[in-house]
Amino acid sequence: MSSFAPNKADDVAIATIRTLAVDAVAKANSGHPGAPLGMAPVAHVLFSRFINANPKNSKWFNRDRFVLSNGHACALQYVLLHLLGYQLSIDDLKAFRQLGSKTPGHPEAGIEVTTGPLGQGFANGVGLAIAQAHLGAVYNKDGFDLINNFTYVFTGDGCLMEGVASEAASLAGHLQLGNLIVVYDDNHISIDGDTAVAFTENVEQRFLAYGWQVLHVDNGDSDLASIYSAIAEARKEKGKPTIIRLRTTIGFGSREEGTHGVHGSPLKADDIVSLKTKFGFAPDQSFQVPQAAYDYYAEFGKRGAALETEWNSLLASYGQKYPNEHAELTRRISGELPAGWEKALPIYKPTDAAVASRKLSEIALTKLAPVIPDLLGGSADLTGSNLTKVKGSVDFQPPSTGLGTYAGTYIRYGVREHAMGAIANGLAAYGGIIPYVATFLNFVSYASGAVRLSALSNHQVIWVATHDSIGLGEDGPTHQPVETAIALRATPNVAFWRPADGNETSAAYLVALKSNKTPSILSLSRQNLPNLEGSTVEKAARGGYVLHEEDNEDLTIVSSGSEVSIAVEAANKLKAEGIKTRVVSLPCWLTFDQQDEEYRLSVLRSGAPILSLEALSTAGWQKYSHEQYGLPAWGASGPYLKVYEKFGITGSNIAKVGKQVVDFYKGKSVVSPLVKAIHL
Amino acid sequence: MSSFAPNKADDVAIATIRTLAVDAVAKANSGHPGAPLGMAPVAHVLFSRFINANPKNSKWFNRDRFVLSNGHACALQYVLLHLLGYQLSIDDLKAFRQLGSKTPGHPEAGIEVTTGPLGQGFANGVGLAIAQAHLGAVYNKDGFDLINNFTYVFTGDGCLMEGVASEAASLAGHLQLGNLIVVYDDNHISIDGDTAVAFTENVEQRFLAYGWQVLHVDNGDSDLASIYSAIAEARKEKGKPTIIRLRTTIGFGSREEGTHGVHGSPLKADDIVSLKTKFGFAPDQSFQVPQAAYDYYAEFGKRGAALETEWNSLLASYGQKYPNEHAELTRRISGELPAGWEKALPIYKPTDAAVASRKLSEIALTKLAPVIPDLLGGSADLTGSNLTKVKGSVDFQPPSTGLGTYAGTYIRYGVREHAMGAIANGLAAYGGIIPYVATFLNFVSYASGAVRLSALSNHQVIWVATHDSIGLGEDGPTHQPVETAIALRATPNVAFWRPADGNETSAAYLVALKSNKTPSILSLSRQNLPNLEGSTVEKAARGGYVLHEEDNEDLTIVSSGSEVSIAVEAANKLKAEGIKTRVVSLPCWLTFDQQDEEYRLSVLRSGAPILSLEALSTAGWQKYSHEQYGLPAWGASGPYLKVYEKFGITGSNIAKVGKQVVDFYKGKSVVSPLVKAIHL
Repeated sequence: MSSFAPNKADDVAIATIRTLAVDAVAKANSGHPGAPLGMAPVAHVLFSRFINANPKNSKWFNRDRFVLSNGHACALQYVLLHLLGYQLSIDDLKAFRQLGSKTPGHPEAGIEVTTGPLGQGFANGVGLAIAQAHLGAVYNKDGFDLINNFTYVFTGDGCLMEGVASEAASLAGHLQLGNLIVVYDDNHISIDGDTAVAFTENVEQRFLAYGWQVLHVDNGDSDLASIYSAIAEARKEKGKPTIIRLRTTIGFGSREEGTHGVHGSPLKADDIVSLKTKFGFAPDQSFQVPQAAYDYYAEFGKRGAALETEWNSLLASYGQKYPNEHAELTRRISGELPAGWEKALPIYKPTDAAVASRKLSEIALTKLAPVIPDLLGGSADLTGSNLTKVKGSVDFQPPSTGLGTYAGTYIRYGVREHAMGAIANGLAAYGGIIPYVATFLNFVSYASGAVRLSALSNHQVIWVATHDSIGLGEDGPTHQPVETAIALRATPNVAFWRPADGNETSAAYLVALKSNKTPSILSLSRQNLPNLEGSTVEKAARGGYVLHEEDNEDLTIVSSGSEVSIAVEAANKLKAEGIKTRVVSLPCWLTFDQQDEEYRLSVLRSGAPILSLEALSTAGWQKYSHEQYGLPAWGASGPYLKVYEKFGITGSNIAKVGKQVVDFYKGKSVVSPLVKAIHL
Repeated sequence: MSSFAPNKADDVAIATIRTLAVDAVAKANSGHPGAPLGMAPVAHVLFSRFINANPKNSKWFNRDRFVLSNGHACALQYVLLHLLGYQLSIDDLKAFRQLGSKTPGHPEAGIEVTTGPLGQGFANGVGLAIAQAHLGAVYNKDGFDLINNFTYVFTGDGCLMEGVASEAASLAGHLQLGNLIVVYDDNHISIDGDTAVAFTENVEQRFLAYGWQVLHVDNGDSDLASIYSAIAEARKEKGKPTIIRLRTTIGFGSREEGTHGVHGSPLKADDIVSLKTKFGFAPDQSFQVPQAAYDYYAEFGKRGAALETEWNSLLASYGQKYPNEHAELTRRISGELPAGWEKALPIYKPTDAAVASRKLSEIALTKLAPVIPDLLGGSADLTGSNLTKVKGSVDFQPPSTGLGTYAGTYIRYGVREHAMGAIANGLAAYGGIIPYVATFLNFVSYASGAVRLSALSNHQVIWVATHDSIGLGEDGPTHQPVETAIALRATPNVAFWRPADGNETSAAYLVALKSNKTPSILSLSRQNLPNLEGSTVEKAARGGYVLHEEDNEDLTIVSSGSEVSIAVEAANKLKAEGIKTRVVSLPCWLTFDQQDEEYRLSVLRSGAPILSLEALSTAGWQKYSHEQYGLPAWGASGPYLKVYEKFGITGSNIAKVGKQVVDFYKGKSVVSPLVKAIHL
């Protein structure tokens, strides 16, 4: 389509979107009518004229991606999904924000990415756009423009104030992502009222500074032709992402339009009557959809289905001409890993040299990258410390920079942890890509907003989180995690792995790569760790196992990561004094908790006290142990062995502590901490 | 000073800074020499010509504040502190990055704010500048320009890539902070190499978009006159913050200057020889300070001491003319609260109406604000939800906006949680101000980098964190915290309060306001909570107490916040069935842990099982209970009572769970979970 002639049906469709959104919010007596009323025109123009997607197959791979970064406006998204013919009925709209409905308070399912926490969707959009650029560069061939979709993002003022969006915008400009089109709902209102109270920067100039194309539409409320032209122009710019500043009136049509009164509360009953009258709808009826609106959007479905059919033929011809690429691409789209990939994982013997687990991670990645092309790595400007760049890999960069290509598999995220996490969610959401990202463990917390959504949305993102304790030494307490591990372990569906040696590092990658609905955090040491007697990939892959067994033990020490070898040292010292000590390694709580009860109780068994050991906060370890040893508060700056000594995390002190524990429990009946009345 | 004539002594001083920094890093065999070498000239010009401070009294209130946001360059800061005559000896420099030294790997003490985690210092600087603007507006009078210091911030590329700095920069521009001067070390290098790999935005244009004055110096390596002029010009602009882009050569003087090889590792021995020779120092000696350098900086000390003396006289005359303001200001500077302020705290009876604890917080703030003018509040664009704006209070705004004044006590932070947290750290660090900030509890995690530094640096910052559970209802899992509480409870020196009713909310404010070395997070409900029989401010102020006592109990339920009344309901149901149930309220773990052992063991006593109840992750509750009830994973979107019911957090289900627990422990000897072999 090269021009645009708005017609009466457009007005009917837009009025339908507006009244349905108002009705959904009113019925729920909860929600945000303002943005749906203001953004209905652009949503209509975008979906009716530009977006390539098939409502009958929402997973068609080359569909255009749409992200509602201002997720509180989701009534808009739900209404559109309904009108366009997706599996979302009028009854689903009526169940807006109700328990168990398809239409929760912020978008969780049936959409590309979960949004609501501000700024995340914007950055997810950058990830979706990177994914297209990358897969297109890898698989497209002359005459086979297989992967060429656009990513469209709607955003409000709130998202643009968030740092995560600023970080992502700067990177998107650097990466020259011409396939990314952001529509900024410039309605001058946020929850605190007029944006004049806090947000007076020149947004257009800022995005120009980032290297974006910047367009604007002065009347987003009704100037459909200008909206159309702006989007069309955005699509033409191939070397830059585009932001369209769209001036709208929040709550358009309401008596309170243009005020924050319409932002986050249902319209009043008489206002709804007035609004429906204004838009030519029966004022006393709810959830009205003129047949003309359904008919109009049915065209969208037809076009989308035809596009997918056409694309499927193209893919089939591609398969004839490029059978290898076709096989790989379709495997990647399916989410299956290549057969036999696990064989690439390195296996270690106790006689192998001590190696830092960040280095073990590098060795694993070096072996895995050639067999799993789905891996798309990167670091927040700590590549040489995280050891995440596989030797010989090419940077993901715009070819014009001369620094790499879009087919490159290594992203230079810059010092932008939060955007990195959110971009990785977008990469995972696109499909065909398994993103891994990296920073120091302590700075994963800069990205906790993104990690949380990763877990909630089932994105397979792997974090290579190095320098994971006081073992980093001189950088000191500002960089030494204390609370980070328990924060991540307490987040549902986050697999936090803290491997103790080579085999456990391989196990962490094994499970992380198999877990395609779960983000995994690999917590890795800066310092060297010995390869342990008793560790195997298979055992560690259960999340916890007996590393060193003793019959009729006096004590079990349960530990993780860099402290497991210290636990072994302590156990040996205790043995010399006649105290039989088992050692359990517990690299991943989530995975261990998923094992059957019999197994878990065999690992952390009743009969003798269990002491936990970790160079972090002890919080949470009470679940797996009777006694806990760890950091009482912050770490310290100094050479790492001295810091360990300062906190008593040495073989000899832990042996002493172990003896105290044994004495304390002597003569008492000791039951496993896993034996409980309540299991949630 | 209005002009600048560089002389030989300047060169000697700069060379001394450079060689000392190189020596400190070399001796530690760890650290970052690159930025100190590059920034030595600007540091020298700034400290020798502009900064007003007295090395003999580093706490002089009207001193200029200096923040090294790129904290990894701290060798530079330590060297300057030494040369300027602060209490930091040459031996302290030699102990750089060693255990227990005054010179840890990232600045922790003896400086304005702890830095290292990138972007934080930049935002702290915005807070320091707001503090000056505010206190100046409140206390300065004609002829008494008492509070008029500048805040200088050094920053590198890393900080400027971080979202927290972007957020803070946008707000600083909006607030027209003319007292803030940022020097951007534009050295084109970060850890991953040339900034061309990830950071190609136009920084000058971005800051212009934020409303800053933007200056630049092309040769920061040696053009002292231009450096001088730029800083002088920055000081003249009263209506905008200034950023000076200073082009420097990282590692200037090293053979590897201009490469990332000099960023984060000591220089090689032969490189140090060559560098010292180049700068006219003995190549085989370390830690050399020419007397000329000491003499030169001694002038700084003299000037600073004189300025303080002059200021003290001014303050004394002010006291004669404005005794009330003088008394209030000096009290605020001392950090003491006004006598009798506690009496303002509201007290409740069980017959008082049920009120949401966010509303109870508003009532407390409304009572406290008139008696504690030190309170400077704000919200990240959730004012109407957080209920943090005291009625009648004035916005902190540039007068030219017509929206408030700098004397105003309410900051509109915009949707910028991370910057808000870091700015609050700066406000607290300035002195005389107790900042409180607000967002939903779930989004405190967006700011966890700042909260962590608040705790590590002992900043008294109060977070009003509302909508603290599934009790927020319809907004759903994207907004419902699960892991947030344990993440904060596991952070050393964070007081996480989850009050159950009015008296507990008052207790939370009581302890938070008294704890001037501790940040406090007040976790508050959206939904109404009954005032409980048995709660008092005094008891709750101990962090945990017996709300409902029973002799020879069969069960104790320990709970917090909105679930305490549900525990009481369950206890009543159990009593009707003959099961004696105590109820313990545990609003603040940190405070409870600080009580004596006897008290703690009287609250969570041996003899009967203890069941914890909280509508969050159960992680960590094992420390205080034998059995745990909470959320198994994510929350859900729906009306809040239905969501509570879905997860079984109702009086009747908890009574059922309680019975299970009682049955399970029947006949077993039950020891308090606080009875332990190991106490860290």
